[in-house]
Amino acid sequence: MARELGADMVLAGESVERYCRDWHGDVTTGAVAVLRPRTTEDVSAAVKACAALGLSIVPQGGNTGLVLGATPDQPTRQVVVSLERMTRIRRIDADDFSAVVEAGCILSEFKDAVAREGMFFPLALGAQGSCRIGGNVSTNAGGINVLRYGMTRELVLGLEVVLPDGSIFDGLSTLRKDNRGIDLKQLFIGAEGTLGIVTAVSVKLTPEPDQVATALLGLNSLDDAIALFRRARRDCCDLMSAFEFMPPLAFVLAREAIPDLAMPIAGDYRAYVLLEISGSGLVDIADLMERFLGAVMEEGLVADGVIASSQGQARNLWLFREGMNEGQAKRGPHLRTDLSVPLSRLADFVRDAEKAVADVLPDCVCVSYGHVGDGNVHLNVLPPGDLPRAEIDARIYKAKTAINEVLDTYQGSISAEHGIGRLKRADYITRLPAVRRELLTALKSAIDPTFVMNPGCQLNIERSS
Amino acid sequence: MARELGADMVLAGESVERYCRDWHGDVTTGAVAVLRPRTTEDVSAAVKACAALGLSIVPQGGNTGLVLGATPDQPTRQVVVSLERMTRIRRIDADDFSAVVEAGCILSEFKDAVAREGMFFPLALGAQGSCRIGGNVSTNAGGINVLRYGMTRELVLGLEVVLPDGSIFDGLSTLRKDNRGIDLKQLFIGAEGTLGIVTAVSVKLTPEPDQVATALLGLNSLDDAIALFRRARRDCCDLMSAFEFMPPLAFVLAREAIPDLAMPIAGDYRAYVLLEISGSGLVDIADLMERFLGAVMEEGLVADGVIASSQGQARNLWLFREGMNEGQAKRGPHLRTDLSVPLSRLADFVRDAEKAVADVLPDCVCVSYGHVGDGNVHLNVLPPGDLPRAEIDARIYKAKTAINEVLDTYQGSISAEHGIGRLKRADYITRLPAVRRELLTALKSAIDPTFVMNPGCQLNIERSS
Repeated sequence: MARELGADMVLAGESVERYCRDWHGDVTTGAVAVLRPRTTEDVSAAVKACAALGLSIVPQGGNTGLVLGATPDQPTRQVVVSLERMTRIRRIDADDFSAVVEAGCILSEFKDAVAREGMFFPLALGAQGSCRIGGNVSTNAGGINVLRYGMTRELVLGLEVVLPDGSIFDGLSTLRKDNRGIDLKQLFIGAEGTLGIVTAVSVKLTPEPDQVATALLGLNSLDDAIALFRRARRDCCDLMSAFEFMPPLAFVLAREAIPDLAMPIAGDYRAYVLLEISGSGLVDIADLMERFLGAVMEEGLVADGVIASSQGQARNLWLFREGMNEGQAKRGPHLRTDLSVPLSRLADFVRDAEKAVADVLPDCVCVSYGHVGDGNVHLNVLPPGDLPRAEIDARIYKAKTAINEVLDTYQGSISAEHGIGRLKRADYITRLPAVRRELLTALKSAIDPTFVMNPGCQLNIERSS
Repeated sequence: MARELGADMVLAGESVERYCRDWHGDVTTGAVAVLRPRTTEDVSAAVKACAALGLSIVPQGGNTGLVLGATPDQPTRQVVVSLERMTRIRRIDADDFSAVVEAGCILSEFKDAVAREGMFFPLALGAQGSCRIGGNVSTNAGGINVLRYGMTRELVLGLEVVLPDGSIFDGLSTLRKDNRGIDLKQLFIGAEGTLGIVTAVSVKLTPEPDQVATALLGLNSLDDAIALFRRARRDCCDLMSAFEFMPPLAFVLAREAIPDLAMPIAGDYRAYVLLEISGSGLVDIADLMERFLGAVMEEGLVADGVIASSQGQARNLWLFREGMNEGQAKRGPHLRTDLSVPLSRLADFVRDAEKAVADVLPDCVCVSYGHVGDGNVHLNVLPPGDLPRAEIDARIYKAKTAINEVLDTYQGSISAEHGIGRLKRADYITRLPAVRRELLTALKSAIDPTFVMNPGCQLNIERSS
């Protein structure tokens, strides 16, 4: 392989290991080689070389995915193609409210470069210091700003993709409106590399929201949190940029990870909401936040609350949200979910699903938090940390089964924002109606007839050999 | 056919004519029959019956399309399937910010029903009193609110589609976030019925923007209009809902159609902008408009302007925009275009394209107007009305060729919001890169292997017989 592609592109032996271990470190596999192209043409050559050798390809960005979409599962037949060297920002055009960036650019580096031009790229997620924009596109990443700006799909204007035959789909237009028939780029967004390798992306930018108001609120129930969301959606119009809910346990977990975190609210409440309103220009965001909270506190919908009076304080409020995740990790292996249900049924779902878990696993603890406005809840389940690993795993499996049974009665999704990858493949396929499965199979067979692209991911259609 | 499907579903003979004439009345063809199903199962039966008889299908909504996407072109081999009887609104759920509606529901009737629940469906276009929501989805319709709310694609949460084999794709979820792999519904949005027949749609709703501020502004150039847009995008944040530009001729044309229309601005300016800001709740929209205009007028970016002081006045300002279209129609046959270019190059493009037309057609008049924030311009060309039809047609063709030559140098789109249909097919295919054409052909062949769905539209792939 080094002969065809040049030694510079090919890694083999021990150095491939870090590309074959998932983000959580739960799974370590191997690969025939790791290819690290520097250009789109390199990627094309890599795809052709792999096809010629009968090897299949696992495309990889920052390797921060949570569903094993970029982790090989057939070490002797798969090659990882890492985009980590294609990091160039090809263009930032503030006048056009757009930018063109290569797939391997780290999200936060891109966001920073955009900010230096006075503009804003809204995608925001925990992994943004490590994840790469091509991976964000391939997984249609979500995050905390989806409420206002949509998933990654809604931020993408165009794509450059190397197709399974090595040809290059050249679609880096920045047109806002281009209604020329079927929109092919949509196929590759969320396909997790099963139809091609995204090598560059053109995206929408917005003006930098230079006013941000952040508040942490205590409420009497999750139902109240949902009522508050509806109210905020109307009262704060399209200026709300985050509405996250957390249980009381969030604070306990956050302080297990970050012991000196100061409690922002004195009382104990059944539900907490992290609310962010933001904007630019002539809109007075601080005033809007104050008037909104004044009204809903007077009505009793919000029991207590604190508005951050500085960027540092706002950062501290978000630290609870982030620390909560670290705290869960510290308690040992646990079930992480990424579910969505219709917004109007979120509180009922959380109640029913937590009850279902408590019924079968009385010694486990549920932590439900997430993005209210998207109907997206991460309902995680923590087994006691001192159990043997096999018993922990059995509880994780049991908890997932109990939650998914409830989820199915709500017509919910087992993956709101993380994708399918290999981790959720079985749960995905089980729930896939025959008509969809046939369409997806026809599509995959039409675009990747030799099944070279990320076999094992999503549908798991294999080359018949 | 009446035997298989029941006489109630089938129209034949003279009564098919109105389904075989396009919106402008330019083209009248015919069809073997018109089928008017009442249910999704009826549509499925219709598709199967047509396939069995070797007939192909032209799906039709309100028949208001502008590119002959729903007009048959092979009268002896095509059947029109009209969705006009599937008009039911299945559900409006204000708490879920969603609704489910059948494809044949007229857009304005749906919008009114949504408004009665205190909610808002943002899609807004000239034909909304006649067009049907399934057609809006199939053409990915645009309109005046795209700037704030996106094209139809961004409003769709789920679809029900009858596929070319008669099977039913059942995807009317209202989940805001559902990241389970490849998003199949995207294929059908903008496909103009070439991959299946959309029978129902689930859509996003937003709170009703009960505050609307509308202003008509006079500016010294289109460049200033674009600078003003950039400024408004930042100063008015995400609260701008329309930013339309018009040439001085707009007023002349509007008054040719509506003679008693009062001139809202006294002076003569080179460019006019119709600006709308809107919102709900605690945001003070009127105040925002006043402060914004105060600032930009003081700076000289806007020369003159009037803010509507009532809904009636706002309606009058919009009448200029609508009357301008009627006025063009009154001047006789003319070139209508629907182009987009990168936002940062819109003014240059209009200048270059108008010059190219003037060079080859000195006796024609250009009318350029459109949606600045989307880079979308309708650059129409009016030949002298007293010429013989053949000479008018020759000028229309010549104007289109001159404009498209300029457009290609700007990497623009020949269809920003209207679709391809049959009218733009040749211009579309000529510009289609080989990689895209191959992908589209593979896709069509995979999903509609017998080419039963809307042949002649977009790619014009035919059954090989």
